[in-house]
Amino acid sequence: MALGIGDDGALINPSADTQLVMASDTLVESVHFPADASGEQIASRALCVNLSDMAAMGATPKWFTLALTMPKHLANNQWLKSFSAGLADVAKEFDIALVGGDTTLGPLAVSITMLGEVPVGQALQRNGALVGDAIYVTGTLADGAAALNMLKANANKVTEDSERLLARFYRPQPQIEAGIALRNIASACIDISDGLVADLGHICLASGVKANLVAQWLPIHRQLREMSEADYLNWALTGGDEYQLCFTLSANNKIIVDQWIAEGKLMATMIGQITQSCDSGELVTVDQQPVEDSIGGFDHFSN
Amino acid sequence: MALGIGDDGALINPSADTQLVMASDTLVESVHFPADASGEQIASRALCVNLSDMAAMGATPKWFTLALTMPKHLANNQWLKSFSAGLADVAKEFDIALVGGDTTLGPLAVSITMLGEVPVGQALQRNGALVGDAIYVTGTLADGAAALNMLKANANKVTEDSERLLARFYRPQPQIEAGIALRNIASACIDISDGLVADLGHICLASGVKANLVAQWLPIHRQLREMSEADYLNWALTGGDEYQLCFTLSANNKIIVDQWIAEGKLMATMIGQITQSCDSGELVTVDQQPVEDSIGGFDHFSN
Repeated sequence: MALGIGDDGALINPSADTQLVMASDTLVESVHFPADASGEQIASRALCVNLSDMAAMGATPKWFTLALTMPKHLANNQWLKSFSAGLADVAKEFDIALVGGDTTLGPLAVSITMLGEVPVGQALQRNGALVGDAIYVTGTLADGAAALNMLKANANKVTEDSERLLARFYRPQPQIEAGIALRNIASACIDISDGLVADLGHICLASGVKANLVAQWLPIHRQLREMSEADYLNWALTGGDEYQLCFTLSANNKIIVDQWIAEGKLMATMIGQITQSCDSGELVTVDQQPVEDSIGGFDHFSN
Repeated sequence: MALGIGDDGALINPSADTQLVMASDTLVESVHFPADASGEQIASRALCVNLSDMAAMGATPKWFTLALTMPKHLANNQWLKSFSAGLADVAKEFDIALVGGDTTLGPLAVSITMLGEVPVGQALQRNGALVGDAIYVTGTLADGAAALNMLKANANKVTEDSERLLARFYRPQPQIEAGIALRNIASACIDISDGLVADLGHICLASGVKANLVAQWLPIHRQLREMSEADYLNWALTGGDEYQLCFTLSANNKIIVDQWIAEGKLMATMIGQITQSCDSGELVTVDQQPVEDSIGGFDHFSN
């Protein structure tokens, strides 16, 4: 996979009647991935994190540029081959094209800018949630924080238990298909990169509403309930790096989405509701309580 | 100037009947700028370098994202204010919009991805130079290398002599207007970031031709001829970071461009000619000699 395209810039032909969605994310060694991560792990994580932004906008990802900064000791064929393999693997799965970029010597960092397309007026945004809307989340919660916690403790050692979490960390599953399906359906949408409460809070702030979550409805993988009873509700509510979509639905569109879920077309769970208009203060509660109380009291939920 | 746009990605409306040009460049501390450069200097240089890629494609720059990685000791209001001022200043001059990006903690690096527009089929590319075409360059040569040389020696001290060169380094003048004027006129175009010989070589390789430069025609600022007789031809031929455009013209279009130059509408100089078809070997000569001989023999030209 070439890193350049042989001219000063890439020429791109946007489709008719579409808007473009542009998003950037940078991953820095020891900040966003451990120093012992492989080239392949770093590449796939960087690309998936960027793809998740496209999913959150309901966009079809199309093109990306890569700015790779790497120290001299990594600038060898073996590392670059591993990195390229990770990049190519994800690019192929999501049918996106590397159209340019550059490599520079320096401390290891990967910056990707992605360009996607969405039919005019159908982009998913943060500011459309209305009072009465149901709140949903795709997949399961708490995996991102659990993986990070495990990586800190285990230093990238793979055990049977950890395999799923490691995959979740280095190869999050951008919810592109869900995002596309939710065009014209979701009233608001965001990807959970900062944590459920924080990101739902972004929807609330942009929409001028308050949200209440129901702790017992939060979808958490069985493995997590078993391995870290003491942490999982905290992780589910505040853990970052989930790369699931949190979205809101009107009563009518809830019927449509519930049907998709029942038919196995979409993996998503209702986790709460938009309760009232609001333009300040605490925007997200759990079981009608402040989030801190819920986290402090998680023991009650886990028994 | 906000670094985010308040959603997971920026929504962009491309103009009708245009193609998009997408390009990325990363600047790393101590590699692409000295450690004592100000936030304003770093920002303006980063943005100008990226704008130059748009100029080389004949594109009208429109939108950009910024990935700023910065160490903790710079993450203060003063530095960010300086950086933002540099960014805003250049963005305003070229009427471009920051549409997203992120800031992360880490070693200082600035990665910008720019998106521009060009009418369908009118992008300037590298592969259209034909035998007999005249070779032109905008502005003057050798300033980039002279500035770099001065920075290494002077450590960012401003003297009367150095002011023009410092400005050239931190605030190169992207040849956007020239690039736009040359749509449908230039047979090939590139910006000189790697050095005139290297970048003209890229045109030759892509076009399957050889080029010959005439040393005495190279436009070099009077100041440089005076201050560094021993270096200027070398700098003009091989120095990077010029951010001028090198382009080729058919005999008919040469008449048009010469008229623009005579009328003061374009500052550019003919510096040589495309001489023959070729697909390997030394693609660029100076006065019909290998470049090395010309550089070794520069004393003859300067007297």
